[in-house]
Amino acid sequence: CRLDLSQTDRYYESVYNPCEISRVYISNQCVSSATPTEEMNGAGNLMDFLDEPFPDVSTYEDFHTIDWLREKSRDTDRHRKITSKSKESIWELIKSLLDAWSGWVVMLLIGLLSGTLAGVIDLAVDWMTDLKEGVCLSAFWYSHEQCCWTSNETTFDDRDKCPQWQKWAELMTGHAEGAGAYVLNYFLYILWALLFSFLAVSLVRVFAPYACGSGIPEIKTILSGFIIRGYLGKWTLLIKTVTLVLAVSSGLSLGKEGPLVHVACCCGNLFCSLFSKYSKNEGKRRETLWRSFFAALVAAFTLRSINPFGNSRLVLFYVEYHTPWYMAELVPFILLGVFGGLWGTLFIRANIAWCRRRKTTQLGKYPVLEVIAVTGITAVLAYPNPYTRRSTSELISELFNDCGALESSQLCDYINNPNMSRPVDDIPDRPAGPGVYNALWQLALALIFKIVITIFTFGMKIPSGLFIPSMAVGAIAGRIVGIAVEQMAYHHHDWIIFKNWCRPGADCVTPGLYAMVGAAACLGGVTRMTVSLVVIMFELTGGLEYIVPLMAAAVTSKWVADAFGKEGIYESHIQLNGYPYLDVRDEFTHRTLATDVMRPRRNDPPLAVLTQDTTTVEDVETLIKDTDYNGFPVVVSRESERLIGFVQRRDLTLAIKNARQKQDGVVSSSVVYFTEDAPQLPASNPQPLKLRRILNLSPFTVTDHTPMETVVDIFRKLGLRQCLVTRSGRLLGIITKKDVLRHMAQMMNQDPESIMFN
Amino acid sequence: CRLDLSQTDRYYESVYNPCEISRVYISNQCVSSATPTEEMNGAGNLMDFLDEPFPDVSTYEDFHTIDWLREKSRDTDRHRKITSKSKESIWELIKSLLDAWSGWVVMLLIGLLSGTLAGVIDLAVDWMTDLKEGVCLSAFWYSHEQCCWTSNETTFDDRDKCPQWQKWAELMTGHAEGAGAYVLNYFLYILWALLFSFLAVSLVRVFAPYACGSGIPEIKTILSGFIIRGYLGKWTLLIKTVTLVLAVSSGLSLGKEGPLVHVACCCGNLFCSLFSKYSKNEGKRRETLWRSFFAALVAAFTLRSINPFGNSRLVLFYVEYHTPWYMAELVPFILLGVFGGLWGTLFIRANIAWCRRRKTTQLGKYPVLEVIAVTGITAVLAYPNPYTRRSTSELISELFNDCGALESSQLCDYINNPNMSRPVDDIPDRPAGPGVYNALWQLALALIFKIVITIFTFGMKIPSGLFIPSMAVGAIAGRIVGIAVEQMAYHHHDWIIFKNWCRPGADCVTPGLYAMVGAAACLGGVTRMTVSLVVIMFELTGGLEYIVPLMAAAVTSKWVADAFGKEGIYESHIQLNGYPYLDVRDEFTHRTLATDVMRPRRNDPPLAVLTQDTTTVEDVETLIKDTDYNGFPVVVSRESERLIGFVQRRDLTLAIKNARQKQDGVVSSSVVYFTEDAPQLPASNPQPLKLRRILNLSPFTVTDHTPMETVVDIFRKLGLRQCLVTRSGRLLGIITKKDVLRHMAQMMNQDPESIMFN
Repeated sequence: CRLDLSQTDRYYESVYNPCEISRVYISNQCVSSATPTEEMNGAGNLMDFLDEPFPDVSTYEDFHTIDWLREKSRDTDRHRKITSKSKESIWELIKSLLDAWSGWVVMLLIGLLSGTLAGVIDLAVDWMTDLKEGVCLSAFWYSHEQCCWTSNETTFDDRDKCPQWQKWAELMTGHAEGAGAYVLNYFLYILWALLFSFLAVSLVRVFAPYACGSGIPEIKTILSGFIIRGYLGKWTLLIKTVTLVLAVSSGLSLGKEGPLVHVACCCGNLFCSLFSKYSKNEGKRRETLWRSFFAALVAAFTLRSINPFGNSRLVLFYVEYHTPWYMAELVPFILLGVFGGLWGTLFIRANIAWCRRRKTTQLGKYPVLEVIAVTGITAVLAYPNPYTRRSTSELISELFNDCGALESSQLCDYINNPNMSRPVDDIPDRPAGPGVYNALWQLALALIFKIVITIFTFGMKIPSGLFIPSMAVGAIAGRIVGIAVEQMAYHHHDWIIFKNWCRPGADCVTPGLYAMVGAAACLGGVTRMTVSLVVIMFELTGGLEYIVPLMAAAVTSKWVADAFGKEGIYESHIQLNGYPYLDVRDEFTHRTLATDVMRPRRNDPPLAVLTQDTTTVEDVETLIKDTDYNGFPVVVSRESERLIGFVQRRDLTLAIKNARQKQDGVVSSSVVYFTEDAPQLPASNPQPLKLRRILNLSPFTVTDHTPMETVVDIFRKLGLRQCLVTRSGRLLGIITKKDVLRHMAQMMNQDPESIMFN
Repeated sequence: CRLDLSQTDRYYESVYNPCEISRVYISNQCVSSATPTEEMNGAGNLMDFLDEPFPDVSTYEDFHTIDWLREKSRDTDRHRKITSKSKESIWELIKSLLDAWSGWVVMLLIGLLSGTLAGVIDLAVDWMTDLKEGVCLSAFWYSHEQCCWTSNETTFDDRDKCPQWQKWAELMTGHAEGAGAYVLNYFLYILWALLFSFLAVSLVRVFAPYACGSGIPEIKTILSGFIIRGYLGKWTLLIKTVTLVLAVSSGLSLGKEGPLVHVACCCGNLFCSLFSKYSKNEGKRRETLWRSFFAALVAAFTLRSINPFGNSRLVLFYVEYHTPWYMAELVPFILLGVFGGLWGTLFIRANIAWCRRRKTTQLGKYPVLEVIAVTGITAVLAYPNPYTRRSTSELISELFNDCGALESSQLCDYINNPNMSRPVDDIPDRPAGPGVYNALWQLALALIFKIVITIFTFGMKIPSGLFIPSMAVGAIAGRIVGIAVEQMAYHHHDWIIFKNWCRPGADCVTPGLYAMVGAAACLGGVTRMTVSLVVIMFELTGGLEYIVPLMAAAVTSKWVADAFGKEGIYESHIQLNGYPYLDVRDEFTHRTLATDVMRPRRNDPPLAVLTQDTTTVEDVETLIKDTDYNGFPVVVSRESERLIGFVQRRDLTLAIKNARQKQDGVVSSSVVYFTEDAPQLPASNPQPLKLRRILNLSPFTVTDHTPMETVVDIFRKLGLRQCLVTRSGRLLGIITKKDVLRHMAQMMNQDPESIMFN
């Protein structure tokens, strides 16, 4: 799921909105060191231009990087205007208050809409997932659970067997049991799955190509200040919501959490466009998007906005364990951490390799076919195994759950000792029954299946999240380990390792906790979140007692995974697609200097610059025609090469067009000047054109001896687009964000051309 | 509790360690654009200096700001050296591994030591607090609780009455009851309190003045990159630990959480000094300190490292409520939020005003007297009221607790309806008994008392934390509101507001929850943490169900408080003491330009600069003698004023001293040059002195037109000490962090001279 960035090969970009600068002049007569007279004619000269602002000034082109400093100062400016105005009239005051509150309003709206969507998606997925197996006679739009909820079988294990709910075979042939019925159900299950996934992939293909994948890598890039038009658009929102439902219910090994985050960000973008405060300022917009990104990331796990069964829990998988954990258990927990790390590494390596192959070979040309094939294989292999047939989140919550007395599931088929009178809350460890051993086998198969299929699923041209599948892998592994430890502890109380903490007849080991820890470890291995992950796991399960086991596992898995490669799955995909993303985490430790990175290189043509008062309109126009740079430095003179400012291509074009129309006497041969006062010219010359107002007088500069380490830091922390390189006041060259990324790639022995070209 | 920063009136500070630069040269022959020959003689010339590095290079003076970029690049450099070395031998490899792990080791050690200290302090405080009332006959070092723990009275309400524990009066006179005994106990209580606080304040005065206050404002400043020698020293650690115990047990209205954070940071500093990786690099040291700061901030609330009664809860006040909360209850919750905000504002304003008075008037001259007086007043007023007599954290946990069936406390004196057979878990709302009404009065008095006395207590010359007192205020108010709502709901089921959620005989209202919410609100109002605060409250109470009430209250209180003033108590104290702290949160929105802030001002003497190849040793020495600047810009020539670099005062001094001793032929009249090659001089001249190696070739520059907003951003994000101001390559002036802070103060209409002068 990648973008074509080939059109971004421009490397001069401007820093300030020219209108800002001139306003600075006017607004600062009080404090500015410039003398009032300067101010006056400075202001006077450009009044005629100020009252007709450039139409598309301050907008960025697609696939370009925004300039954070500039956006920030523009917002400050706007804010200043509003506050000063608000004193004039009640109406203005109200408007300013509204403006101040718009942030909260936007967040509220985002919360409501994305929450609702999440809820709707939940319900739709439940229904369609069950639709693959059967239908509710009382009301076909009921899911299996809803359908039987109304029935009068109340005991727990009969709840999912009720007359209203009929499997397809039963409905069509009348026979609920038997090989024939089984085969028919199997067949229809596969058919539904193929139908759903086909619809999903075709919708994405036709209407919104950006709707595929989890979207998190792209959103991270966008948040870091990159423009991808339409990626958060209305169409993407609509299509992603629909196709997400289809994809999840088709039974593919993918989760809906990641895409939900994308959906939430689309909502954010939608509501941003309602308020000029955000729609007109890419920086502010991203602030808001970031909030909704984060909120959604947590919400995806915690809040179940629509909850038909009204259990008041805020958490997705609520667990309540009755036993504490013991120091000795840290060993298996840490082993699970190691497993998580290894799984993370394996998954990332394999998935990236597969995605690269998809991009480079014929495979990429037949996305629909690919999806169909994978869905088919998944359905065929998944149906026979009860643990892969059901939806993954159901599986996880069963694995997390402790075996109460009333549990009917296979996993809880323990041999109760007779003299235990009534089911009490904390049941002592018991020997496992045949059901448990049977379940262990099925879980082992499910584990292998999930591991393999997920690698091929993530990255197909449909909405696909990663959290739930990797959690499933971890939960399965964890549960298996948990049961193993539990049985060992039961059968070998006398072993040294158990003696001092597990007396006979006590409830020592909670397999569900192991599943939880395993899930955390695997999620950590894939995404490389540790602390935030553990917090999420709290939210997820409400288990505040288990911070130490979770932490231990999460940290271990991060260490193990980092040992094989620093990048998480999202960073890897960002790199694979060559997005211009400057990761805060990866340190640049090489000792190169700015002079090694700046353009022009030794054999390049010299830097394209303007002089402050000797260039003619014609020269400028040819320069614009011949080059495709986004901006040009302005120097005192070609001899001295002393930098005075930076001018943006678009502004230059507009200003000259403007002048040619409005100002008579401006011809090709008339001189363009950026100084305060017009240069002394012979009377014969045509009227010169003053362009100081579009000159950015504070371009960012570093000396050629600045270590690249520092330069990278500056780009990262100040969010620059480019900065100029000087030596003792002389302009030598320019470094853009892209040059920096290229250089970093080069230093990491990657192909520098991969950046933004794929 | 402030520092004398008067000696910091120097405003030129250097950016790079010169040795770095030269190493850059040598290590980059491969990539550097400089020609090999340059490299060689560049390297050659300075070899003789490199093998004898300057003794105290890269160290900062006291009360100076560190340069983050520089520290970072120094660490990178060190890291690079180690990794390259590690390939040489096994021993080096092991050393590099140790180095890589030292971070974890340090954190582990810090955790252990500060955890132990926290535990010891806990126990000591319990003991000494009870010592004010009586003594344990079986073992005088037992606290009241421990003393009676061993006794055989097991029923809950007899637990604190046991023969081994005797109040002083009983011990001395034999009479436990009666007015005489009461007066005697009262008297001794006051006496002990005075003794403790006197010891505390005198110890602080004599041994470690830095041990006073909560320490958080200073630590925030230190973490932001400021040097305060000894503030995290061994003595401070020792004295603060001891005096903290004394101060808390003296019964003053102060908490130990803030000071514990200071103690933890002292531990951090202590262990940092064991590893050169941290001791030699102020940046890395601060990273570590920041971790322990954060860890301690959470740990102060959560982990009870030594827990004599072995309840396995990780949290300080564990609460378990059996009822959910209802939408309608959000109204009182939000009202509590408003109260919290108002309390926060009132407290900050009053406390700051009082501290300013202390600083400016005679009052400040008699800290001991002040402490004694406040202690006396506190003790006299606190003893009669049971809710102020006991330790504040006990009070809070009682207020948080839900009234179980076995509760004996006054607050749970409800009238049980007879037909309730046995005490069940969730008790329906009941009418309040006389005890409750009595308690309400006492709580109201306690509330007023706490509010007033805390204002005068915080900021005295003893260790004093703020979290517990402000939580107490909130908890009291919350509990009062809670009981009020509960009784209303019980007596007026029919009212509209209760009808739809509170049936008769149901358990609708949980007063303890109100106390919790109130505590969060007040803490939020004072410290202005919201999210982090809510997280802490989870940790504090383990109540994950109550995120919405807590959030509502915390956010409301922040809004209300912010409406009266953006700064929390810590920021206010930082400002009061004029620490050089650049707060990330406060936006600089004024439209001033760099040229308005830079030195020299219009009427100042010109900038003190060196020229690259015309200054003589004598000139330099006079310049150093006449000025006290920390560094000097180097320009091509006084005419062109083109900036080529920046040289640090100390390095200059050392280099010349060095040269005069080692290099013969270097005399006062010999020329100092910073260029690659020696200038052409008549043969008669003495041998010139090359100083390029101490020249920082990449000083940070901005143009004079750069908006201050941007400059502030740069200082904040890059952690600069100063940056040079140029116009078209000409050096105009310099801006230091202090200038920036001064300017910001000025713009906020505060006295700019307050910065670092108090």
